[in-house]
Amino acid sequence: MIYQRVALIGLGLIASSMFWGIKRQGLAGEVRGFARSEATRETARRIGLCDVVCDSAIEAVTDADLVVLAVPVGAMGAVAAEIAPHLKPGATVTDVGSVKQDVIDTVGPHLPEGVDFVAGHPLAGTEHSGPESGFAELFDNRWCLLVPVEGAAPKAVADLRALWEGLGSNVEEMEAEHHDLVLAVTSHTPHLIAYTMVGVADDLRRVTDSEVIKYSAAGFRDFTRIAASDPTMWRDVFMTNKEATLEILGRFTEELFALQRAIRTGDGDHLHDYFTRTRAIRRGIIEAGQDTDAPDFGRGASR
Amino acid sequence: MIYQRVALIGLGLIASSMFWGIKRQGLAGEVRGFARSEATRETARRIGLCDVVCDSAIEAVTDADLVVLAVPVGAMGAVAAEIAPHLKPGATVTDVGSVKQDVIDTVGPHLPEGVDFVAGHPLAGTEHSGPESGFAELFDNRWCLLVPVEGAAPKAVADLRALWEGLGSNVEEMEAEHHDLVLAVTSHTPHLIAYTMVGVADDLRRVTDSEVIKYSAAGFRDFTRIAASDPTMWRDVFMTNKEATLEILGRFTEELFALQRAIRTGDGDHLHDYFTRTRAIRRGIIEAGQDTDAPDFGRGASR
Repeated sequence: MIYQRVALIGLGLIASSMFWGIKRQGLAGEVRGFARSEATRETARRIGLCDVVCDSAIEAVTDADLVVLAVPVGAMGAVAAEIAPHLKPGATVTDVGSVKQDVIDTVGPHLPEGVDFVAGHPLAGTEHSGPESGFAELFDNRWCLLVPVEGAAPKAVADLRALWEGLGSNVEEMEAEHHDLVLAVTSHTPHLIAYTMVGVADDLRRVTDSEVIKYSAAGFRDFTRIAASDPTMWRDVFMTNKEATLEILGRFTEELFALQRAIRTGDGDHLHDYFTRTRAIRRGIIEAGQDTDAPDFGRGASR
Repeated sequence: MIYQRVALIGLGLIASSMFWGIKRQGLAGEVRGFARSEATRETARRIGLCDVVCDSAIEAVTDADLVVLAVPVGAMGAVAAEIAPHLKPGATVTDVGSVKQDVIDTVGPHLPEGVDFVAGHPLAGTEHSGPESGFAELFDNRWCLLVPVEGAAPKAVADLRALWEGLGSNVEEMEAEHHDLVLAVTSHTPHLIAYTMVGVADDLRRVTDSEVIKYSAAGFRDFTRIAASDPTMWRDVFMTNKEATLEILGRFTEELFALQRAIRTGDGDHLHDYFTRTRAIRRGIIEAGQDTDAPDFGRGASR
């Protein structure tokens, strides 16, 4: 057991998966949970999510050794302000937001002396959200990035690392700014692009909805999966990782225009060279164990 | 048995999957295959791909009741010109290219009277290519679009439909121009975008290769899968479906710029509305049976 008492603030996909994972491995004595919505709290009680579902964030964090902020990035600051006076001395506060610098800037100033703040980001998710979407295996063999805030006690970082490892993750520490740039490349910009492509398809009147859906197997389907993620979470990501996302978007449109020109001018060699280069990255991902080489990806039969 | 003798010209992912599917269901008496590359023909002989592997396309198509052109779209015309004088009267010629108007324009004029041309496009694939990448189940519950060329005998269309249904596909007929637009939306443009995003990631010097690969789970990984597809095939797709792809790309960049502006100006409502709308399309795809609702998509553990 790493913590006597853990408080999960917000009970969506990540927090609910953390709860089931903590129970799987016996990583904490008691897990208390709070969600702003009464409906979510009722659902949590019904499905046995959390040992105690509290009716206020303050009740949840009282006496907690670890407080996990698992709300959209844009809501972190307000939650921190509310709970700060009620945090146990020596407690650790962490979060699971997709953006780190903004969370550190908005949460950090609220936290009292004697509380360690170690920001975190588990790189795991599905397109589902809400208290019923969690499952204990979500973090298995996924990365969790920790961003210890200046002054955080080494033991607080070590315990949180042990928790995430107990949840199945591989853990690395990273600077906030670097985190936000890496994620802009590997997650935030791809999500925005997927949202855009799905929106374009939806807009086209000559290609009926049903056709787009029927014939989605080759490529588009993967975009729709990405673009089905939680709207509030993603709005907040783009509002708070603005600079890095805009930088990567700028590079993306620059490259896209070059390929578009190659199509228009019939420069097949340019396209072929480009497409050959991108294949190597895919091989790297398979070798790194972050996906499988199974040939029938995305097909119902193999699930 | 639908055909006495089938000739597969080109022995990549699609043709090799067709062979294994034909054998699974006993859909043809004999399947002959030809590939331009000697190495591919040797591999095919070694793994038992095709009843007879021929050393020329002409040998393969002689006496064939069905000839399947399974080469990149840009190579179709030359193959058609070579085999045309050797086609059996009453034979059917089809193809499996991702673009239909261009194939009809380049293949059609070569074919003699008395041969039926029914263009085709199975909407199935993986990011793998080559003679060893095929498997009998590739077409199960996928769509196959047929574009009968003017004058094609109804029986030729019906037999080809029966073949694809025997391979597990759902078959629909469609006009060539409409096909090319629908595919530009659901496949061609998404592929170009995925190639671009992967290329951008590869270019970024501040985000090392290994980080992009390590932290690919959230979004980017799906892009790399798409962007690992066969470069020659995709070059030809963009060279031959230029107009529709450029049209959809134009709409895509227009939408992307609107979202980019919303990020820059901090217009969270615009983003939230947009992201909410795209979620519905995903639900439609799951309801249409073209993907599953499994929460752990893309994760090795569930394969």
